[in-house]
Parts: sequence; C-alpha cells; structure tokens
Amino acid sequence: MSIDVTDDQALRCFLEGAGIGVPVARFRVLLARAAASPRSYPEDAWMRVFVSEPSEDTKTALRALRAGMATTRPAPDPSRLDALREALAAAGVDGFILPRADEHQGEYIPSFANRLAWLTGFTGSAGVIAVLRDRAALFIDGRYTLQADQQVDTERWERHHVIRTPPSGWIAEHLGGGTLGFDPKLHAIGAANRLRAAIEATGGRLVPLDPNPIDQIWADRPGAPLGPIEGLSTVTTGLSASDKRARIAAAIADAGAAATVLNQAESIAWLLNIRGQDTPYTPLPLAYAIVDSTGAVELFVDPEKLDDRVRAALGNQVSIRPFEEIRPAMTDLGAAGRTVLLDPDTATEWMRMSLEGAGATVIEAEDPCILPRALKNAVEISGIRAAHVRDAAAIVRFLRWVDETAPTGRVTEMGAAEALERFRSEGALWRGPSFPTISGSGPNGAIVHYRVTEHSDRPLGTGELYLVDSGAQYVDGTTDITRTVAIGTPSSEMMERFTLVLKGHIAVATVRFPVGTTGGQLDALARQFLWKAGLDFDHGTGHGVGSFLGVHEGPQRISGTSRVPIQPGMLLSNEPGYYKSGGYGIRIENLILAVEAEPLEDSGRPMIGFETVTFAPIDRRLIVPFMLTEEEIAWLDAYHAAVRSNVSPGLAPSERDWLVEATAPIRG
Amino acid sequence: MSIDVTDDQALRCFLEGAGIGVPVARFRVLLARAAASPRSYPEDAWMRVFVSEPSEDTKTALRALRAGMATTRPAPDPSRLDALREALAAAGVDGFILPRADEHQGEYIPSFANRLAWLTGFTGSAGVIAVLRDRAALFIDGRYTLQADQQVDTERWERHHVIRTPPSGWIAEHLGGGTLGFDPKLHAIGAANRLRAAIEATGGRLVPLDPNPIDQIWADRPGAPLGPIEGLSTVTTGLSASDKRARIAAAIADAGAAATVLNQAESIAWLLNIRGQDTPYTPLPLAYAIVDSTGAVELFVDPEKLDDRVRAALGNQVSIRPFEEIRPAMTDLGAAGRTVLLDPDTATEWMRMSLEGAGATVIEAEDPCILPRALKNAVEISGIRAAHVRDAAAIVRFLRWVDETAPTGRVTEMGAAEALERFRSEGALWRGPSFPTISGSGPNGAIVHYRVTEHSDRPLGTGELYLVDSGAQYVDGTTDITRTVAIGTPSSEMMERFTLVLKGHIAVATVRFPVGTTGGQLDALARQFLWKAGLDFDHGTGHGVGSFLGVHEGPQRISGTSRVPIQPGMLLSNEPGYYKSGGYGIRIENLILAVEAEPLEDSGRPMIGFETVTFAPIDRRLIVPFMLTEEEIAWLDAYHAAVRSNVSPGLAPSERDWLVEATAPIRG
Repeated sequence: MSIDVTDDQALRCFLEGAGIGVPVARFRVLLARAAASPRSYPEDAWMRVFVSEPSEDTKTALRALRAGMATTRPAPDPSRLDALREALAAAGVDGFILPRADEHQGEYIPSFANRLAWLTGFTGSAGVIAVLRDRAALFIDGRYTLQADQQVDTERWERHHVIRTPPSGWIAEHLGGGTLGFDPKLHAIGAANRLRAAIEATGGRLVPLDPNPIDQIWADRPGAPLGPIEGLSTVTTGLSASDKRARIAAAIADAGAAATVLNQAESIAWLLNIRGQDTPYTPLPLAYAIVDSTGAVELFVDPEKLDDRVRAALGNQVSIRPFEEIRPAMTDLGAAGRTVLLDPDTATEWMRMSLEGAGATVIEAEDPCILPRALKNAVEISGIRAAHVRDAAAIVRFLRWVDETAPTGRVTEMGAAEALERFRSEGALWRGPSFPTISGSGPNGAIVHYRVTEHSDRPLGTGELYLVDSGAQYVDGTTDITRTVAIGTPSSEMMERFTLVLKGHIAVATVRFPVGTTGGQLDALARQFLWKAGLDFDHGTGHGVGSFLGVHEGPQRISGTSRVPIQPGMLLSNEPGYYKSGGYGIRIENLILAVEAEPLEDSGRPMIGFETVTFAPIDRRLIVPFMLTEEEIAWLDAYHAAVRSNVSPGLAPSERDWLVEATAPIRG
Repeated sequence: MSIDVTDDQALRCFLEGAGIGVPVARFRVLLARAAASPRSYPEDAWMRVFVSEPSEDTKTALRALRAGMATTRPAPDPSRLDALREALAAAGVDGFILPRADEHQGEYIPSFANRLAWLTGFTGSAGVIAVLRDRAALFIDGRYTLQADQQVDTERWERHHVIRTPPSGWIAEHLGGGTLGFDPKLHAIGAANRLRAAIEATGGRLVPLDPNPIDQIWADRPGAPLGPIEGLSTVTTGLSASDKRARIAAAIADAGAAATVLNQAESIAWLLNIRGQDTPYTPLPLAYAIVDSTGAVELFVDPEKLDDRVRAALGNQVSIRPFEEIRPAMTDLGAAGRTVLLDPDTATEWMRMSLEGAGATVIEAEDPCILPRALKNAVEISGIRAAHVRDAAAIVRFLRWVDETAPTGRVTEMGAAEALERFRSEGALWRGPSFPTISGSGPNGAIVHYRVTEHSDRPLGTGELYLVDSGAQYVDGTTDITRTVAIGTPSSEMMERFTLVLKGHIAVATVRFPVGTTGGQLDALARQFLWKAGLDFDHGTGHGVGSFLGVHEGPQRISGTSRVPIQPGMLLSNEPGYYKSGGYGIRIENLILAVEAEPLEDSGRPMIGFETVTFAPIDRRLIVPFMLTEEEIAWLDAYHAAVRSNVSPGLAPSERDWLVEATAPIRG
C-alpha cells in the first residue's frame, strides 16, 4: 500500500482507517517534523505521536509516508552569508556571534537547531562563529581543525583555535567600537556576561536580536523534531517524580526563591521521570519547565508528544502547556514580582532578560536538579549494573567477531561500527547509541574524537591497533566503553604504552580516598606512569555519566581542573589513553561507580572507592606482564574473572570458549 | 667589668670608650629594645646597631648590660580583659576582633606585637579573639585545642574551633546589630572585606580603631625589636637588587599602577637583598616599602638598624625613611592622585584606607615579588644545594648520636633538640633554626605541631618512634627536614605504616608532570598507599620554602586545594606522614626542587620533575622491603648512595662508618 502524500482524499481515507485523528494539512506538517526528527528507538516509536497502537498495515504505510518526506538539503553557498549580512544591516548591528548551542544548552542538538552548520557547512559538535561586515570567522578546538578546513569555504571564513584566539578577543579587535548582535536564547547567562564585558571593554556594545537573524533567512529549515515522550516507572528511576519534585521544591525555597525555570532537558527529564526522542544519542524532549517552591510544575512542550498514559503519570501537579507559552509564563512570573532561581551556567540570557524585564528578581545558583541527578539511587545502581552486563555480552560478541574476521583484511572501521551496533541492538531495552561510535584503526585511532566517514574508512590492518569507543542507551542505564585491540602482532612499543595506560586505569579503579576529595586530586593517578615515560594524553581521565540520560553529565569529573568532590552514587568514566599521532591510539575505558569504603581507621572519616561496572576483556596480547606489580596483576585477573562470571550466562558455548581464553589469568 | 645601667656617669664613660655615639638616655631605650629582640645570629650580631666592630671588652660589657635588661613579664590576669572592655566602651564600640597577626602579616611575630598572647596567655602560632560586652572567645585550629585550654582563663574565654565556628559567624550571632571595632593594621584587605560583609549581613557595623585599644592599656609592653640589617651579595642572591627593582617596576607598570606599597618583610627583604633580625626563625627586618614604576624605592625602617655599608649597598635609588613616615608617605601618594597596587591577601586594610582616603586609586593584584621570589635562580639553587649538604652533616651526626645514646634511656626530647641545634651551630653560615624544632617521642610524635616543653618532655623510650622535624637558616639557604627514627625494636605495624609513608614520599620524589600541573593535582600521589590501607594524614604534602627567608613561603604548595602550577625553580617540602593518636607519629620530609625534565615525546610540551636536595638516611630498620616495588627500592638505594657521597667528605671516619651502615642498599 503506497499513499501519495499530496493526495488529500487518499490521505484522509488512510488517516480515518488508521484511527489518526488529525486533519490532512496538520498531518502533513507533523509528518514533515517526524521525518526531520532523529532516528527513534525502538524503530517505530516515532509513530506514537500519531496513533498509540498502529496495526502492521498502518506501520508500513507510515514508514513509507515518512520516507517520502526525507529531503536532501543543499550544501551552504556564499549566498547564505550574504543574506545574513543583509539581515544584520537591517537590524542595525555591525556583527553577530553565534554558538553551536541551542536554547536548551545540551550536548546534542536536532538538525533544525544547527544554524551554524546551515550557515557554514561545519558539522562538528562544538564551535562558535562571528560575522562582521568585512570578515567572518569560525572558532573551533584542536580536534576539529582538519574537519573545519574541509567543510567550510576557507575564502570566506577564517578558522581560529577557540582557546588561542578566543572569539570575544577577536571580535573586540575587529569590531572596534561597534555593535554586536547576539541571540540571547543561545548564550548562558554567565557566558553572556563575560562576552558583554569583553565587548564593552573596547567600547563596543552587545545587542540582543529577537528573532535570530538566521531564522529569518533560513528558507528550507527543517521542522522541529517530534519525538514521542514516554514516562519511566520507579522500577527504573527508583524515585517517583512527586518525591523528586518535593525535594527540588525544598531546594528552591531554601535558596530564597519562589520558582526556578529550567531549559536543560536533562534536568526536566530527570525531574519528571520522562524521556523524549528529540535529540540524537540522549533521550530528551525539547521542553521548558517552571518548578515552583510548592513542587508544582508547568511543563512547556508540544502537546502532540504526550499520550494519555504519560499525562496521567505526570499527575495533576504537572500542567502541560504549549512550548511557545514559556515566554508569557515568564512574563507572568515577573508581573507577580517573583524571585526566580536561574543557573548562570545553563539558563540562557533570554530567560534572565525575560524574567527581569517583566519585574522578577533573579537569584543565580546551581540548578538544584544537578547534584541529586548525579547521586544515583539504589534502583538506578541496580539498573546500571544490569545494563552493563547486557552491554558486555554485545561487546564480547563483537570483540570475538573482530578477532575472527579482522585478519581477513576485509573488516573496515565502518563495518566494525555497524557490526557493533547490530550486536547491541539484539539486546533487551536497547535504545540506540549514546554517542557517535569512534571506530579507528591504525593512525585513525590516534584522533581522539575520530568519526569514521566513507572518505576516511580503512580496514583494520594487521600489525595495527584498533580503538573502538562506543556506548548505548538502555532504559535502565547508559553505557560508554573503549577497548583497544591488537590486530595481528603488536609492536613492543605498542605493548609498553598500552601497559602504561593500563597501570593508570588500574590506579583509578583501585583508589580509595576520603570524603571531600575532588576529581582534580585523582586525575594524576591515571597519568603518573605515562608521565614518567615522557608521555601523556590530552583529555580528562573521566566524565560523569547519566542514567538513561546524557553520556556526559556533570558535575563530577576526573580532570585536573575539577573542584567537585566525588560522592558515593556518582557514575564516572575511567579512560586514560595514549595517542601517537600518525601511528596508533590506545584507550582503556570502563565506567566506575563511587561507593562507600571502610572509613579511615583513625578518625572514622568516611572513605570512598570505585566499583567498576563495565565488563569486557582488556586485550591480554597488549600487556607486558613484568611491567605490572603483583597488586595490578591481581586486579586484572580478578577483573577478568568477574567478566567471565557476569557475561558467560548470556553467551553461546562457542562465545564462552573465546571469553575463557580472552580472560585467562596472567598468573595462572 | 660590670656597668650599672642606671649610673649615668659610668654609662657615659663606657659609651665613650667603646665608641658608641649615642646619648645615655637614648642608649637605655635602644638597649631595652635590643633585649626585647629575638636571639641574634651570630650571637653578638645585635651589637652592630651600637658599634660596627666591638672589642672583646666592649662585647663582654654589652652582653652584661643587655642581660641586665631582661625582665620576666607577669602572666595575664583578668584585669587586662576588664581594661580592654573599658577602652572599648570609651571608643564607643560593642566589641573587638583581634587576630594574632601583626601589621606585616608574616608567620612569626616579635613579642611586642603579640597582643593576643598578652591579653589571653595563649602563645600558639595562629588564633583570633573576639571580645564582646558580656562574652569573649578564642578561635583556634585543631592543633591548639589542648594548649588553649591550658593557657587561657577558661572562665572568661570560650574556646572555639576556627573552622567549625568561624569568628565572623560567632560575632554576627552575639553582636546583634552592634558595632565591632577592629585594628585595620592587622587585617589583610580581603579578610577585612569578608569580615565586614558578614557583620553587615546581620545589621552590624565594622569600625576601625586607631590606635589599637590594647596598645593603650598595655603598660609594660616590650620595645620594638632592634635587629641589625645586613646586605646580601649577589654571590648568594644571584640577582642584584637593582635588577630586581627594574623587574618589579615593570610589573607595576604592566598592572597599570604608579607604585606598590609593601608591608610583608619577606618581599622587601627579597627585593632589596637585605636581611634583618626582628623576627624569630625568619631573618626579617620590620619595614614598609614603596616601590614605584621607575624602580625607585622608599624603605621605611628604624635608621639604627642600618650601617653605612648597607646604606651604600642599597644605592641612591633606595631612600631610607623612618618607619613611622609610611603613613604620611601614603597620604602623599594619595594627594598626588596615584594609582597604587596592593595585594589583597597581604596588604592591610589600613594601607587601603590610608591610600584611598587620601585620594589614591587602589588596584588589587598579587604582590609582584611573590612569583619571582619563588622561582629560585641558578645562584640561589647552588646555595640551596650547598646549605643542604652542610645541614646534612649535622643531621647525620645527630642521628648517629641518637642511635648511640638513646638506648641508655637518658636522652629526652628536649635534650635531643638541644643536641641537634648544637650540631648545626658548628656548621658554616648557620643563622639559627628556621622554625621551632618538633622533637617528639612515642605519643608526642603523633602531635603534628608538637613543641616540647619542660612539662611535656619525655625520654626517647625503647620500642618507640622518635620524630624530629627541624630546619635551619643558612646565609645560602633555608632547610627543613623530618626524620623518624626507631629507638630499639619497632612493631610490625610501625614498620608497615612507615613503609606506606615512604612509598608516598617516593611517589612525589620521582613524579614527572607537564608544565601547568598544580600542586593540587600531585597531592594524592603521596596519599594513595595510605588511603588504600584506610589511613591518611591531616596536613598538606608540601609547602614552599624560601632562600634564607621564610621556611613557609608561597605561592606553591602540594595540597589538594592548591591551584598554583609548579614551575622549575620552585623549592618545596615533600613530607607525607602518619599519626596514630596516643601511639606514635611518622613523617619523612625532604626538600625538593622543581627542575625541567625531558619534554613530552609527542608534543614537545615541557615536563617538570623534582630534585631532592635534602640528604640524610631514611631509617632502614623501619622499612618492610617486600612492600616496595623494584623502582622504589632503586630510588631508595640511589638516594642513600647520594647521601653517602655528598655527606661523607664532611664527616669524621667513625661518623662515616655509621653512615655507610645507615645507608646500606636494601638490595646489595
């Protein structure tokens, strides 16, 4: 059955038969938005915004209709920059600054919000542009230098390193005393303040532009995504949304505020025990929320995304309002003279302006959801463990597959990444990758944030290392694991450096430390052995991880600059590495859960240790045993024994045999 | 020859004969100040303020005259607190806060500046008091709890832990909305701001009092110290004062200021290549200085302290003005509308008020002397090495003496400390201890800042550990070393914990790290082994050390909260420990010098390592060899070999034999 989406009569007939109660014209709009949404998990989940339980025929028809909406969008051409300059002139400003971030300030953004990519062609995950009358620049970090050169029109765009040449300095220098437009929806309050100070210091002025001038010229802009929202049960969240609301309400009151406005979908999703499908890799709905000090919540979201079950689960203390009403709602808070808490690192300058402009008093403080979200409860911890054991079965199958097929020379980076996703997709509760898989062989493994393309794809060659960093979203937990595998016989240098990385990994895995110790204090433990050999790695040792939420979630980190104490219940990655440019990359990453340890013998001060929750073999062929201490060998052998006992039950006999071999003790 | 100091005629005759050109009455005043000054090094150095090259007869007479001035001062009685309350009422304030610090904000203060001890009897090195109409409190840290209970009148003084019950909170609670007097000369700008904010938050008001009300009631106050000032040659400083002045002048200009006012004697002494004798343990003159952006300096100091040679060495760009003229000089800076740099952590609120009140603009920034002072130059480094080798000979003699005499049971903590000072005093360029020696046996070793008194003194008992932490000032360097020694046979627990401390010490001694790494990142390396055993120590791993200056000198530290990058040329202590309350204490302390290491192999980024400059045996009888890795044993054996080769040349044959035994390799 194939339906012509332009045929009103046929479409009306299909909608009626399928029980989809929207008019034809509206259906077309929504279908276009569904087509512009990220891939959904399970595959047909996106249909829920049209019908709760579609028949197989309806599914087939909807799939075909959606596929028909997919369009190839043209690459940027110089006319876009010209049009932007005209729009800026019309707005009476001398320049414009645009970050990649969207109004929710999350890590992954839907394509309709990627103004920077539309304008410049640059698709990296971080960047800022500045457009002045006679020059334009893209500011990126070290990992995107090459990609930016390939993707943007280098005649029209200067490329600068965002740390060495910060945008604010470059702008201040070239803007003179002019006016710089910015979209206050896209800049956090603190960042906007710093930008304003820098511009004003050289006699310039920062001017908010609403609407965003790019939105005015972006003719073929995709629709906003239309991911269905699902409610999570306390069976996976461990804490009801009403308990969470009560706790956050108390924190708001303690801060002396009457309410807080949330724009970060991670906080809203955690607080209300809901997940969405509007962003790739993280199951988030695009939404705003106003939480007041009684625990009542107004959720601003497209109503199509919620079905009756989710509405019922949210309860009568959570009112659903259309997404666009966040602005009048903030005006109302202001008119009532409310004191409103905003997090200067996540709430946007637009929120601050809207509230203060309407008469509200803004208190700046950390989003009260951040710390409770980071401290996983007992149910979340059970889910984390269970999700990791299932994930491990897929990883073990994948590693065995690599072992058996890579020596043929016909496995490529892209093929391997696809195989890994296939193995994972067979597991229960799988909801897709938690970030773009890094699948790098040989020299590509040395590119820390490598993302394989058809252009860069290469086989897993003999005598090379293959580095694969991947993760998954499961309803009960988010995973993130890196393994480095020898294809054929590794060099002794590769083995020595792998062993140094492993020693650092073990040092973090086995550390115990008193309450109050920060991630900044632990970071050197992972590097000490590399440092002694004159080596290092140019990224943090670990990042926080959410529960069926962002794979990068604060506030905890293991990084030299972190001042956040590690507390029991925090989930982190432990991922030291080593990268030889043009040669090979090594990274060994497990997730670790901070847990209470025996208190200090003398003072009784509580101590904290880590429980490793990731279970997959660490390639024994890359280890130089005599470089390890007895304790390190004991840890490795015990870890491998745990891998065997946890993962074997989910494996076929032949897979078990491979695992027994891969996890054999160093000291038998 | 004994002269009666009250006999005008005899005194006049002596002064004439000795060539001391001051009138009799003035001589008596100066002599009283000399008597109230700290012990001078060399012993008769204090006489230089009277005569440059005294004959032996003159020396004998001056010694006797000074001894005759020594007075025993009565202990505090309640009348002092009563008198203070009357003075406060007369000044119209409801309370008063007084820190132990003096107007130069240094670590050690002369007795005439110790208002807190005079009022309360408390002689600890850190404390704050608050006196209100009906209650008074002393705020101290954990190391002084017992001592405060013993020294102060507990009926009249509450004692509080300064962290758990901060003075500002206690005052705000009990002062209500009243007025709190403070002496702005004794509070740094930043501290005064925080205090003011806390008091004003509860409706109170902070009122500067000048003069200090205690100075008004302190009848038998000792005179200000009268230590002679000496000039240092570039043979030990490595950099002429004019080069230093040029460098600091440039930093002042770069900061947009016309001048800076210095009150910290450490900065003034470093900048002008002078040392004084006004403070115990650190060779400092009490002085102020105004440094302007041309490099000219006005030095405010008692002119008696300077002889012609020092004046000549200071040169015509340094003008000497009486100490008291610092105030009119600041008024002049203000009247001229100057912009003046002040360090909010070291300059006092009185300086800020005096400058701003007179019309100056104050820029707050770090004292520009701090970082250059911390980065020791090649000549200073040579001096550090040489001073440590000489110090090591004294330490080795002392350790041998302990080994041979302690088993008799007749060596006490006090006797040992005296013996150690005797050994040191025989060495060249010795200028006294760099801090009060910590000489603790058995349970006293577990008291981190233990200072032996006649009351606490106990023998070095068999089966106990003896901990001795001491240091010396030499003209070419400042030392600080801790050794823990087994008297008789140690328990296996003592040995295991000593070995854990040693492993942490070696981890710091051998670490290499990239430029930019902070002391906060390195601290955990020293603790990791203790932590794993459920143990820790409650102090930082290391502090900065000056060059013939303060034994505690910033900005560098190895401590979890330090955010200062370690740079080549910085001198630090490496002193992990373990303290079993009521049992024993362990600390192993060497000084380490940050030095350039081989750069990172891949990026060429500079790396830094440490060179250990302290040379003394680490007690092999306390080491459990199988707890050490091969690398750790290799470090220890190499360290002991270096001790032998560096120290043996300065020892007698029998001492050498002892040293050979004490430094024998673990792996022969």
